[in-house]
Amino acid sequence: MSAITSLINRQIRLASRPHGLPTAENWESTTQPVTEPGPGGVLVKTLYLSLDPAMRGWMNEGKSYIPPVEIGAVMRAGGVGRVIASQNPAFAVGDFVNAGLDVQEYCLIPQEQVKRNGMFKIDPRLGLTTWLNVLGMPGMTGYFGLMEVGLPRAGETVVVSGAAGAVGQTVGQIAKIKGCRVVGIAGGKAKCDWVVNELGFDACIDYKGSDVRAGLKEHCPGGVDIYFDNVGGEILDLVLARINRSARIIICGAISQYNNTTPVKGPANYLSLLVNRARMEGIVVFDYADRYHLGVAEMAGYLKAGTMKSREDVVQGFENFPATLLKLFNGENFGKLVLQVADA
Amino acid sequence: MSAITSLINRQIRLASRPHGLPTAENWESTTQPVTEPGPGGVLVKTLYLSLDPAMRGWMNEGKSYIPPVEIGAVMRAGGVGRVIASQNPAFAVGDFVNAGLDVQEYCLIPQEQVKRNGMFKIDPRLGLTTWLNVLGMPGMTGYFGLMEVGLPRAGETVVVSGAAGAVGQTVGQIAKIKGCRVVGIAGGKAKCDWVVNELGFDACIDYKGSDVRAGLKEHCPGGVDIYFDNVGGEILDLVLARINRSARIIICGAISQYNNTTPVKGPANYLSLLVNRARMEGIVVFDYADRYHLGVAEMAGYLKAGTMKSREDVVQGFENFPATLLKLFNGENFGKLVLQVADA
Repeated sequence: MSAITSLINRQIRLASRPHGLPTAENWESTTQPVTEPGPGGVLVKTLYLSLDPAMRGWMNEGKSYIPPVEIGAVMRAGGVGRVIASQNPAFAVGDFVNAGLDVQEYCLIPQEQVKRNGMFKIDPRLGLTTWLNVLGMPGMTGYFGLMEVGLPRAGETVVVSGAAGAVGQTVGQIAKIKGCRVVGIAGGKAKCDWVVNELGFDACIDYKGSDVRAGLKEHCPGGVDIYFDNVGGEILDLVLARINRSARIIICGAISQYNNTTPVKGPANYLSLLVNRARMEGIVVFDYADRYHLGVAEMAGYLKAGTMKSREDVVQGFENFPATLLKLFNGENFGKLVLQVADA
Repeated sequence: MSAITSLINRQIRLASRPHGLPTAENWESTTQPVTEPGPGGVLVKTLYLSLDPAMRGWMNEGKSYIPPVEIGAVMRAGGVGRVIASQNPAFAVGDFVNAGLDVQEYCLIPQEQVKRNGMFKIDPRLGLTTWLNVLGMPGMTGYFGLMEVGLPRAGETVVVSGAAGAVGQTVGQIAKIKGCRVVGIAGGKAKCDWVVNELGFDACIDYKGSDVRAGLKEHCPGGVDIYFDNVGGEILDLVLARINRSARIIICGAISQYNNTTPVKGPANYLSLLVNRARMEGIVVFDYADRYHLGVAEMAGYLKAGTMKSREDVVQGFENFPATLLKLFNGENFGKLVLQVADA
């Protein structure tokens, strides 16, 4: 008991709402003493935090698929941690868990929050950070988005942007497993080479170093049946110009637009939906929460069989959260971006 | 025989592709002698021509859902006519038909074109111009677009733009019959009053004389479940800001953008599709050709029962085609725009 109550919990809170890219003054560091869990509660030590493009949206005011992070609140984040104290029979000290931990070193989850938090035990043998990637929220986003909105059929051509990112690597690998032709779009030769050589995509277009329009023409000679969009902006328009009849476009994100200080660039080629009787549909992973276990089981099977890989970009140090988050927006991260907060 | 071969067929051909609104120099008038149909062929005298927003798209070069009208070709148009000579057992002299007549006074349809033309006999007792409106291509567009892409459920809120136009009046009336709350968007008080008082819409927002944003807020207090979009542009964005979870947006047209000399304005609020897990999907009426008869039968039933109305804006005179077409783009037409070429 005394060991725990002597611990100090560092936290990063939202100090103000960013205009454009988040800056240092949007964040505030605070510390709090760690307290023991009450009846039914669990205390988790944060090991890894998931850094996601969606975080930028949570920092904005206004209605979205979940409420914004309030000013002064600890920044929202999912993560992997280890139970260090528990008064809940479902979780034992030493258990590894995936949970809504927020950007702090310790997360106290009272009984009434355990279910709402969505915390669940994970198998560390599959890799701890894998549970924030292919087996985590991004993986489930890719899995359910592709399978339930994209409705892939063997032989179809699937294009995915942010191909080396967390969602993109999942989408592309599942699409390959399902028998599709897969073309990624990623920034830089290293990512493109990895996506093709390690993940088995049929091609990958380097949007930083080559002409995406020409790349789509070359690598999608039969047009595009499914586009899984993580980026929005110009790339969405270029793909819209090449979709096939009855194409499905999954709107998962628009990272190119999240830090705009001008209005979002809408897809000028959206009338291609009309010409091609195509569909553009949004996906939010939370809608599939009651079936995550099915997606996780399928992904875990592929990982064990070696037909799927999971790559994370792990940055060290809790205090580096603000700077590390920015890697997402300049495309510096290579693989799912994760912040390591403590050793397992 | 001699009566027919003495006839002169006036035609309007596409002389050049417009940049922005079509002008006089984009058209060329020609005349040709009328010839007798050969074996299996049919000669139709044009009575009414359908003037549609889609015509503007057919005048452009480039890939679309049908090939563009070639330079020098008679302008494409559907119409209602009367058979004046026939060597085809399926059509007798005196029959009224709906057919691809093009912008000309007489249309000779050779045997090998009869099926491809899609020509069919119509019942003149339902009104000749009705067959270019609720019972014609626009009606089928509204019917199949709403029912098969919109998937309306009783109690849902349906918004339709171009509400007094051919497609819009059909969509709104069907949605009412199916038990939905229906809010139109139209230009001017007269159209809005007609849509509410004559067609039974629950409300209609005058985009020329009032604030559409405020109107949507007032008349769709529970949000928008289905938006049938005929106009694109700013109105599409305003509706996107008010859609509900799992909303369906039917992209039927974008008349506000057809004469742009700058790029199409894409919907800046398209990420509302993500937030609301909503869908935006294009529709082309030709895909439902093998079921038109089912749609027509249902619409004809409503017309006979008096639960549906059909309003056409009939302009006289073949030579007025170029000027009349422009009425569509400034919203001057009140009801489905039709050009009367000859008396029945």
